[in-house]
This record gives sequence, C-alpha cells and structure tokens, in this order.
Amino acid sequence: MTDTVIFHRMSSFVSALQNRICDALETIDRTGSFKHTRWSRPEGGGGDTRVLENGSIFEKAAVNTSNVFGPLSETLSEHLKGTGTSFRATGISLILHPRSPMVPTVHANFRRIERGDTGWYGGGADLTPSYLFSEDCTHFHTIWRDICAKHPEIADYDRWKKWCDEYFYSSHRKEHRGIGGIFYDHLMVDDEAGMAFTEDAGNAFLASYLPIVERRMHEPYTAAQRDFQLFHRGRYVEFNLIHDRGTRFGFQSKGNSESILVSMPPLARWTYDYTPEPNSRESETMKILQTPRDWV
Amino acid sequence: MTDTVIFHRMSSFVSALQNRICDALETIDRTGSFKHTRWSRPEGGGGDTRVLENGSIFEKAAVNTSNVFGPLSETLSEHLKGTGTSFRATGISLILHPRSPMVPTVHANFRRIERGDTGWYGGGADLTPSYLFSEDCTHFHTIWRDICAKHPEIADYDRWKKWCDEYFYSSHRKEHRGIGGIFYDHLMVDDEAGMAFTEDAGNAFLASYLPIVERRMHEPYTAAQRDFQLFHRGRYVEFNLIHDRGTRFGFQSKGNSESILVSMPPLARWTYDYTPEPNSRESETMKILQTPRDWV
Repeated sequence: MTDTVIFHRMSSFVSALQNRICDALETIDRTGSFKHTRWSRPEGGGGDTRVLENGSIFEKAAVNTSNVFGPLSETLSEHLKGTGTSFRATGISLILHPRSPMVPTVHANFRRIERGDTGWYGGGADLTPSYLFSEDCTHFHTIWRDICAKHPEIADYDRWKKWCDEYFYSSHRKEHRGIGGIFYDHLMVDDEAGMAFTEDAGNAFLASYLPIVERRMHEPYTAAQRDFQLFHRGRYVEFNLIHDRGTRFGFQSKGNSESILVSMPPLARWTYDYTPEPNSRESETMKILQTPRDWV
Repeated sequence: MTDTVIFHRMSSFVSALQNRICDALETIDRTGSFKHTRWSRPEGGGGDTRVLENGSIFEKAAVNTSNVFGPLSETLSEHLKGTGTSFRATGISLILHPRSPMVPTVHANFRRIERGDTGWYGGGADLTPSYLFSEDCTHFHTIWRDICAKHPEIADYDRWKKWCDEYFYSSHRKEHRGIGGIFYDHLMVDDEAGMAFTEDAGNAFLASYLPIVERRMHEPYTAAQRDFQLFHRGRYVEFNLIHDRGTRFGFQSKGNSESILVSMPPLARWTYDYTPEPNSRESETMKILQTPRDWV
C-alpha cells in the first residue's frame, strides 16, 4: 500500500475544512444550524454528514466528509483504477441550495483515493445560478483560475474548466447543469504537491462563494422568480439522478441512500414544455446553459 | 410484417380512449383543461400529448398516445424482441398527480409493439397513495383482478400483481413505488384475443380510479400532510429517473425529453433523513411500501 502519512494528512485536512465551512455558513445564515450524523460502514471507516435545513439564507446545505477503507467489492474493483484488493478513500463533498433565486447553488468536492500502490486526487467546484450576474460568474472562475495558476505543474484551469462543462452535461436536455468551474479526476501526481494543491483549493472554496452570497442575499425577488428557481432545480435533480457518475456509483456500491441523495434540492418543480419569454432573464439563463461561456 | 388490421384497431382504440379519459378528468376537475400537443418524428409517425396543469383536483395530469413506425435504430434493435429491420408501436400512457394528498397518484399504460412477424402487448396500471385507505386499494385491485379473470387464457392477475410489485421497486430505497396493480409485457397471444383483453383493460381504467377520486377529493388535509405528499413525490421522481426502464429507454432512443418527463410531479420535496412518527399514518404508508400486501 501507499504511504499512510499523506492519506491521514488529507483526512485531517477535510475534517478541519468541514468545521470551517460549516461555521462560516452558520454565521452568514444566522438562524440555521447543522445537524451532525456520524455513520460507519461494517467493512471499515465511516463519515460525518452535516445538513442544515430551513435556514434563512440556505434552504438546504450539506457538507459531508468520509474516510472509508477496506477490501474492494467486485463493483468497486471494476470502477477503481490500479491493482490491489483493498482501498482507502477520504474527501469532502458539499452542496448548498440557497432559498433566494438570486443566490446561486454551489457544489464542491475534494477527495483522495488509494488502491494498492496507486493514489490519486479528484475534485472541483461548480456554480449553478438561476439568475445570471456575470460579475458573480467571473468572480467564481477567477478564484479557481488563480488557484490553478499557483500550481502550474499540477493544475490546468483551461482543461479543467472544459472538463467541468463536459461532466455536468444533461445530454437528454442538451443543457449544462450550471456555469461550470473546474473538475479533475485521477490526478496522479507527487503526493506532497497534490496535497498542497488540494489544501489551497479546499481553502479557496469560501472565498469563491461567500462574496457572491453576500452580494445577492438581500436582492429582492418575485414569486415568479422563485418559481423559475424551483423549475431550474428540477433540472438539477434530473442531472444528479440520470447522469451523475458519483450518484450512480454510490448506488452501485450500495452506499447509504440518504447520504448520497442529500444533494437533492429541498423543493423542485416540473412544468410541462416550459419556454421562457424571449429576451427575459430566464431565457438568458437557459441560453448560457446550452452554450458554455468563458468567464475570465 | 404482421397484419396491419389489428395494429390500426389498437391505434384507433387508444385515441378514442384518450378522448374519453380526458373528457372524464375535465368533468371531475371542473376548472382544468387539457392542452394538446401533436408531435411527429422524422422517421415516421408521432403522437398526441395532452397535459392538464393547475386544475382544482389534478395538479398535473398527462394522457398521451403515440403511433410510431419506421426503421429500427441500433439501440431500438437491441431492446426490441423479434427480428426484422422495422417496427410499429402504438399505445396510451397516463399519469395523474392529484393536488390533495388524500387522492392517490395513478399511472396506466397499454401498448402494442410489432417487429417483423412478431407482435405483442404490454401494459398495466398501478396506484401510489400517500395516505392509505385500504378500501381504495382493494377497489383498485379488485377491478384489475376481475378484468384478468374475464380473460383467463391471456391474463393472470396473481402473476401480474407480483410482476407489478417487482417492476415498481426502488432498490436504492428498498421500497416499492406504490401499492401496485398489474404489469405485463411481451404478451404474445392471439391478436384478436389480446386486443379484446386490451380493450376491456383500457375501458376499465376510469372505473378503477374515478370512484377513489370521488371518495377522497373532499377529504380535509393539513399542511403537514401536503408536505408528506411532496416528500413522497420525491420518491416517485427517484424511481422514474433512476429505475424506470421506460424512461431510460426513452432517453436511449433519443425520444423527446418533454414527452418522456411529463410523468414528473409538478412539485416534489426532499427532507434529509426523514422518519415518520411511530404508529402515524405516514409510517403506515412507508411500511406498506416496504412490504407489498395482497389487497383482494
């Protein structure tokens, strides 16, 4: 097996990051608080699922960490790179569904997986606004571009931005899930250098997102705009249940369905054959989802 | 190819049935009316999608027919029984999402498919109550049992009831979608006899469902019961997007996503780690969904 020092460093990092992110979200939300659920799996390891529901800013926020290890099941064995009969995986995964349609939904994930002598990093962050504010999109992408630029041996913003657009794509709608960000996987690099990048990336999450929340949380909105947000969340549900490989992999490996589906929005709407008014803000959003744009 | 007479009889039957069902639903709803969308596919044939939204009884109702034919794509060729390079398919498919949590959601489908010299029937009807009234479940199952009993050479209620329970099963939740009904597929029988059964079954739909609506539509309900209905609809979404072979086949064959996803509920909720109060009506429902019961 690989050296365990780097694995434990990753595991400690994601736990500390989870605390920091939850604290910051509770502070900005003011009324909501995270409910903690610790779970363990019989084969080894477990996780810490933290969910805030019905906050004033966040209608639902989930910030989860896990540290699991053990023998590889047949399904896991087929899906994981490398050789060896056991694995270790640790990471943080978060998804935030704000109440206001003016505040974008966000998702981020940072993980390290090891099998036998092979270890790799994966992760990313992506933004899903229902109403577009181009300065918000530019802010988000700029943070991730800068983090990548700080680690030129490891990270490649242009490639990872494209990868993100490709990954979060609903072929049945011919639409992307949001305005993207970065996505990377199977990053087999020097352990220390990969860890240094992961720490910078994880630590950048709050800076990539909170200024957007602060800018939009007092923005007024109408009932019709709230309806469009619920409609748009329906597309989020469709992507996660039909296309997301993480979700499907979770079911295949018989993961806990509550922990896997904690990503679901609190409320979502489906309207038959919805078409936004031409030149409306809603049609602007739908157009951007069909054709990704460069934001920096 | 098979004789076209029986195919046209089926196609005419489902169109007439569509009219009759839509009329009856508009009559009982009083305020809602069906919006018609006719669509055609370049390879041959088309359909008639009818959707009622925001009615007084039905929050969303979709009653669709189609009559499609043409050369078989590679994907279709792998999925359809028989040999031959072209196919024909016609059928009616409906799903009704009532506004009141006391009125159950219902789904039904009757179809005939032909490929080369092979033709078969498929279909069924199943009920998804959020609140259980055992006389409603018994009424629904009794109608379908009696229709099957009228055609003993063709139909087998006991087997089809079990098939329905098995088909509408969410393995990731270890729960069934509802309280079942009947489900059958690849019914290769004498064309005329199969058609006679299909006509009796299609014609029985209103009798299986409307008395339940009439009995429950004035039943009072609380905001908490409405919330449970929205939560339960989330499970409906999960089944349709993760497990339903019809939905997945629709996407694989590049069908129109609006027509495929017209089955989605108008509004659905997800609550993390929801557990109903012990001995509550909600816990009674969740229990029945875990262990199918005999209703007749």
